[in-house]
Amino acid sequence: MTHVSGRHFLQIPGPSPVPDRVLRAMSAQVIDHRSPEFADLGLKSLLAIKTIFKTEQDVIIYPSSGTGAWEAALANALQEGDRVLMYETGHFATLWKKMAEKLGIQAEFIVGDWRSGADPDQIEQRLRADTAHEIKAICVVHNETSTGSVSPIADVRRALDAAGHPALLMVDTISGLGSVDFRFDEWGVDVAVSGSQKGLMLPPGISFNAVSKKALQASKAGGMRRSYWDWQDMVDINAKGYFPYTPATNMLYGMVEAIEMMHEEGLETIFNRHQRHAAATRAAVRAWGLEVLCNHQGHESGVLTAVLMPEGHSADKFRAEALRHYNISLGSGLSKVADKVFRIGHLGDINDLTLIGALSGVEMGLSKAGVPHERGGVAVAMQYLHDTPAPGIDA
Amino acid sequence: MTHVSGRHFLQIPGPSPVPDRVLRAMSAQVIDHRSPEFADLGLKSLLAIKTIFKTEQDVIIYPSSGTGAWEAALANALQEGDRVLMYETGHFATLWKKMAEKLGIQAEFIVGDWRSGADPDQIEQRLRADTAHEIKAICVVHNETSTGSVSPIADVRRALDAAGHPALLMVDTISGLGSVDFRFDEWGVDVAVSGSQKGLMLPPGISFNAVSKKALQASKAGGMRRSYWDWQDMVDINAKGYFPYTPATNMLYGMVEAIEMMHEEGLETIFNRHQRHAAATRAAVRAWGLEVLCNHQGHESGVLTAVLMPEGHSADKFRAEALRHYNISLGSGLSKVADKVFRIGHLGDINDLTLIGALSGVEMGLSKAGVPHERGGVAVAMQYLHDTPAPGIDA
Amino acid sequence: MTHVSGRHFLQIPGPSPVPDRVLRAMSAQVIDHRSPEFADLGLKSLLAIKTIFKTEQDVIIYPSSGTGAWEAALANALQEGDRVLMYETGHFATLWKKMAEKLGIQAEFIVGDWRSGADPDQIEQRLRADTAHEIKAICVVHNETSTGSVSPIADVRRALDAAGHPALLMVDTISGLGSVDFRFDEWGVDVAVSGSQKGLMLPPGISFNAVSKKALQASKAGGMRRSYWDWQDMVDINAKGYFPYTPATNMLYGMVEAIEMMHEEGLETIFNRHQRHAAATRAAVRAWGLEVLCNHQGHESGVLTAVLMPEGHSADKFRAEALRHYNISLGSGLSKVADKVFRIGHLGDINDLTLIGALSGVEMGLSKAGVPHERGGVAVAMQYLHDTPAPGIDA
Amino acid sequence: MTHVSGRHFLQIPGPSPVPDRVLRAMSAQVIDHRSPEFADLGLKSLLAIKTIFKTEQDVIIYPSSGTGAWEAALANALQEGDRVLMYETGHFATLWKKMAEKLGIQAEFIVGDWRSGADPDQIEQRLRADTAHEIKAICVVHNETSTGSVSPIADVRRALDAAGHPALLMVDTISGLGSVDFRFDEWGVDVAVSGSQKGLMLPPGISFNAVSKKALQASKAGGMRRSYWDWQDMVDINAKGYFPYTPATNMLYGMVEAIEMMHEEGLETIFNRHQRHAAATRAAVRAWGLEVLCNHQGHESGVLTAVLMPEGHSADKFRAEALRHYNISLGSGLSKVADKVFRIGHLGDINDLTLIGALSGVEMGLSKAGVPHERGGVAVAMQYLHDTPAPGIDA
Repeated sequence: MTHVSGRHFLQIPGPSPVPDRVLRAMSAQVIDHRSPEFADLGLKSLLAIKTIFKTEQDVIIYPSSGTGAWEAALANALQEGDRVLMYETGHFATLWKKMAEKLGIQAEFIVGDWRSGADPDQIEQRLRADTAHEIKAICVVHNETSTGSVSPIADVRRALDAAGHPALLMVDTISGLGSVDFRFDEWGVDVAVSGSQKGLMLPPGISFNAVSKKALQASKAGGMRRSYWDWQDMVDINAKGYFPYTPATNMLYGMVEAIEMMHEEGLETIFNRHQRHAAATRAAVRAWGLEVLCNHQGHESGVLTAVLMPEGHSADKFRAEALRHYNISLGSGLSKVADKVFRIGHLGDINDLTLIGALSGVEMGLSKAGVPHERGGVAVAMQYLHDTPAPGIDA
Repeated sequence: MTHVSGRHFLQIPGPSPVPDRVLRAMSAQVIDHRSPEFADLGLKSLLAIKTIFKTEQDVIIYPSSGTGAWEAALANALQEGDRVLMYETGHFATLWKKMAEKLGIQAEFIVGDWRSGADPDQIEQRLRADTAHEIKAICVVHNETSTGSVSPIADVRRALDAAGHPALLMVDTISGLGSVDFRFDEWGVDVAVSGSQKGLMLPPGISFNAVSKKALQASKAGGMRRSYWDWQDMVDINAKGYFPYTPATNMLYGMVEAIEMMHEEGLETIFNRHQRHAAATRAAVRAWGLEVLCNHQGHESGVLTAVLMPEGHSADKFRAEALRHYNISLGSGLSKVADKVFRIGHLGDINDLTLIGALSGVEMGLSKAGVPHERGGVAVAMQYLHDTPAPGIDA
Repeated sequence: MTHVSGRHFLQIPGPSPVPDRVLRAMSAQVIDHRSPEFADLGLKSLLAIKTIFKTEQDVIIYPSSGTGAWEAALANALQEGDRVLMYETGHFATLWKKMAEKLGIQAEFIVGDWRSGADPDQIEQRLRADTAHEIKAICVVHNETSTGSVSPIADVRRALDAAGHPALLMVDTISGLGSVDFRFDEWGVDVAVSGSQKGLMLPPGISFNAVSKKALQASKAGGMRRSYWDWQDMVDINAKGYFPYTPATNMLYGMVEAIEMMHEEGLETIFNRHQRHAAATRAAVRAWGLEVLCNHQGHESGVLTAVLMPEGHSADKFRAEALRHYNISLGSGLSKVADKVFRIGHLGDINDLTLIGALSGVEMGLSKAGVPHERGGVAVAMQYLHDTPAPGIDA
Repeated sequence: MTHVSGRHFLQIPGPSPVPDRVLRAMSAQVIDHRSPEFADLGLKSLLAIKTIFKTEQDVIIYPSSGTGAWEAALANALQEGDRVLMYETGHFATLWKKMAEKLGIQAEFIVGDWRSGADPDQIEQRLRADTAHEIKAICVVHNETSTGSVSPIADVRRALDAAGHPALLMVDTISGLGSVDFRFDEWGVDVAVSGSQKGLMLPPGISFNAVSKKALQASKAGGMRRSYWDWQDMVDINAKGYFPYTPATNMLYGMVEAIEMMHEEGLETIFNRHQRHAAATRAAVRAWGLEVLCNHQGHESGVLTAVLMPEGHSADKFRAEALRHYNISLGSGLSKVADKVFRIGHLGDINDLTLIGALSGVEMGLSKAGVPHERGGVAVAMQYLHDTPAPGIDA
């Protein structure tokens, strides 16, 4: 082994840094998943995760990556041949579409430019045109991790209602949940997909489906051939705190602890913190003379900020230099924007000084990599943080 | 919280107790799954797990329970409508069959009495009858966790060969791998399914498919509609140490450590240890005047011993008393043998004194629960352990 | 590294096994020892430890071994040339006497045979003879770790009172505290010495002095030249939760957690558990045809049982065999009884099944080492445990 | 509990942040301190710590704070009534003098202004005047933690030699060891005192005396009445890897790991890193228009930087505001400079981005507390770090 002094700055848009307190909770010995003690843990876990989705309906916990939860959503709520409307917010929306197609779904894209969240008006327009109600679901990414844009889910709901369309509203909030406001019940979402390694401050390994009564009904009436992902099998046995197959027990230990920490801080405080850090980051980016990928005001993500490289400069070369010199991981550009953007994660268990440290790594790294930019982004971010009250800390 | 003094005796047939060293390895901070550092971890993980399957072909690591790896095996290697031959070794063989049926496969059972492993002769006979080669795969459980019987996989291979049948040989070694000898390449297995929480001494959360070239070829040519479980997506990107979606990084930390520990002890030593503990346990059971569920000599499992309750006595009531008085978890009887058997796990990170402690919990628990039995099982087990050399310890 | 399967049985009379929950608490990041957060920890720690000594007077926490706390007791309460009366209960009483002499104290021994605790009558007799009150303190070991005998401290107090003697009562309860009943205030002890690695279930590293008002007064009026061990410096700044020099912060994390666990279990339950395990152990020893070192009824320790080897057999050779074959650490005989006794620790975080595992290691180890003995000790211990209700567990 | 998001910035001059890897090593189960396994650990520990002191002579490891190791040094090497020469570098030199006086030593101070390390010329002059060689030892603080000044120990050695004076050279390198170059053998130091919680990156709890043959000889011939601190008792039994009383086993686990990490990074790289971070910090301080307490060029500490507050402003009020707003702990001014200086620790396991984060906490905190200063310190520090190669990282 080799040791490089100091803590790595993990500033990718997930996995986000896992707090020591969560890692400690996870390092408890595993228990019998059929014991009374486990039932307590199971019930506690299910109750806890519902407070984060803000739902009183069902939440399913899978031992899987978020990608598995995408598949679960599609496999339960839809059937081969079904038509769905998706919105091209970026790379992850595109991946979800490819998955749907692999599973035999006819997925139609509302094309986007990867610089904003979904446009509810376009969705409404398309749904109004679907007078035969052939579209069974509309799938939107809440926080597009590849671009740093947030889709206005409440408005998408209103678009469905305005169009009087019965399609299910399915939302990927893998990187949004726990960092950006999300209200499953209030917003009338039917299926929400999420994962552990972002706003929940856990390692990757478990994922979620929040499921409305309507969606559960749809799954009973249809869905694809499925076993591992079946909602009903889960819901039935979850009632007693158990799972239909061996759950990822130690992840549940961590999740219960992480959600307790989130409520100690306060969900509103958390959301405000993310917005405040995102604003400081954007201020730094502009001071560097660089461009934020998201160019739709109001859609900028609290979770991450994607930054466009100056023409002719490689984002990946820059990231490698930043990593080598300053021990910081930044997110890469994905597919269409590969090597053209880098992404600064500012989600999960971070604070002002960590953000400034990270931004200084970007600023010094740009220089090390010979990327043309103005100095002073860090100073601007400090000014912003100093001047903007931090809920939960400042009086 | 309440504290009950002393260490819980987790003597179920998995999850098995996770060594502190593994828990510590898992409590390291998560890293960027697209970083060069991760690639090292990924390659190391894949190399390590192959040594346990004893294969130089591909092993896929899923963030999922073992149940997910069952589904992966079926979804990649088979198609809806395919016919497979399965062997009713017990509850888990039955569950796998139900899953196959849910996924649209025509699964045919060779009926068993839950008291032995698979009979290669019956398999050979059935395959010989299938002159049209309609059977696409034969599915066998290596170590049936519900009964404590082991199927002779090498002999099953010989049965296929003797019958000249081209079916794929698919083996569930979820609870066998790392505890009972298993040789993927040498035995000509085509797909092996396993999980983390048994012989690998990890918490539940990752699972495996070992895949032969023939099986991989079959999956390319067919398989079901699939995305999360797709072998080829995995194999392609695994070559560089990465995964197609976010892997369960901290589980990989633990797996690398656990496999290093296994090689420190030696795989042969591990297998012998399990046999020795199983023999001591059976000796105790007989001394109690009780019956071991597995009644086929040579099929007794090194992983667990299922014990039949005397007529009219509840296994679950006994287990509850043992838990309450002696802080020991024993495995329950499942489905057909529910409440009629209890199971003593003796797999993973245990040793002679832990086994004796566990058996004393059973012996005293039987008495507390008013179950008729002879005293002295513990004494007999001690005699056995004392008299039988422990490879790796005794000269 | 090499890995030997299973958990080591640490059955020495301290350090006792540290519960995982305590190890996790200790693995939290260190904090600023002058911060407000630390003051909370400091006050909490001091309050907690007082509940274990059962005192409302002062308890001092030293970053040191228990040996340091011996020195602290002597250096604060006594002066060079002072005369003290000590009682030869065994090796540790002898070591404390040697220390006193090194520090210039005239230490007088009431000679003992290492097979019982202190005899209050002899103490009373000696004190009555000291009409000039030249004896400044009487020093007694509460639980003599080298022999497994407990001194009746309340009776020693009564002896002092009966003799009308003003000497300070100083008690070493390093291995007794938290395992065997101890009541600092009620019993009128003036200085009690203890350490972390026994009944408190912590690693070694901190030690304690409980100090009566009378002792504190004596230290103000005199004591030896001292700095690190000075009580008054501690007491002054402890009032605000701080320490005069850098405290062992992570040990305090562990101590607060351990004491919380102890109160969850209940002190009375803990004491009863130790007595019950000690009685089971003695029953086993007798069944083996061996002799318990402590031969004074009522003085047998709940913490450990020292066992005499048959003439001509080496205790150390036996211990080495037990360690090699069964991965169990047993305590050695010390000084005068070196190689003649071995000691079985049954203190701290253990339970019935661990005790039986340990006793089976002794029984099988005796055989491996060729030590003549009767079989059946484990069976007798099981019978005892089965028949004797376990407070806190059995109805 | 309450949770405040993100990692606390522990920027005091010790305890320094403990790396996760060390905390994990420390969380292993305790072992029998008289076992063969322990002997390996003991020998490994003693060998390891010698590489840090750069000595082949003896190093003693105490379960105690650094303050205890001060006392050990005095109690072994000196006698009541002995005269020693000490140098007033700051608060800790003063505390050491007070301790010496408490122990009956006649301690003479060379007065200093707390703004530099020791002046070898003054020492030489005073020693030359001591023609009777009444001075038995000269005591110097290597890195004065209260002021951020380093004494030139090699030059102090030369002063002794030039004066032809036989006094022992005793050095407190509690906060220097492992951060600032120190060479016990090469510099002819006789007794060096250190602790775990600074450059060694461990929690507080163990401390050290490095002891020259000459000092060991002096202790045999004399020294104070002592027991716990006795060098010879330690040296005798350390030869076999054991200790005369229960050692702080888990701290040794951590120490072995920490020293392995230090050698992985390289001692020279570590020292250079500290100098580089100190220089960046001083650059920031000057840019803020504030004054560094150490005003002697070449004596500035790599471990910490003490900063003078502008007249009329409270350092403690500033520190409280920085803590409240930015979750950063800064060191307070001690005794004579209480409330007049604050101290920025930059020792142990930190890196460039952590330092920038910390400095931004200072800069924003100064503003929150209404302390007059220039902006731009962080920018200047970034410039310095960017322009100055980091050994071990930059090509």
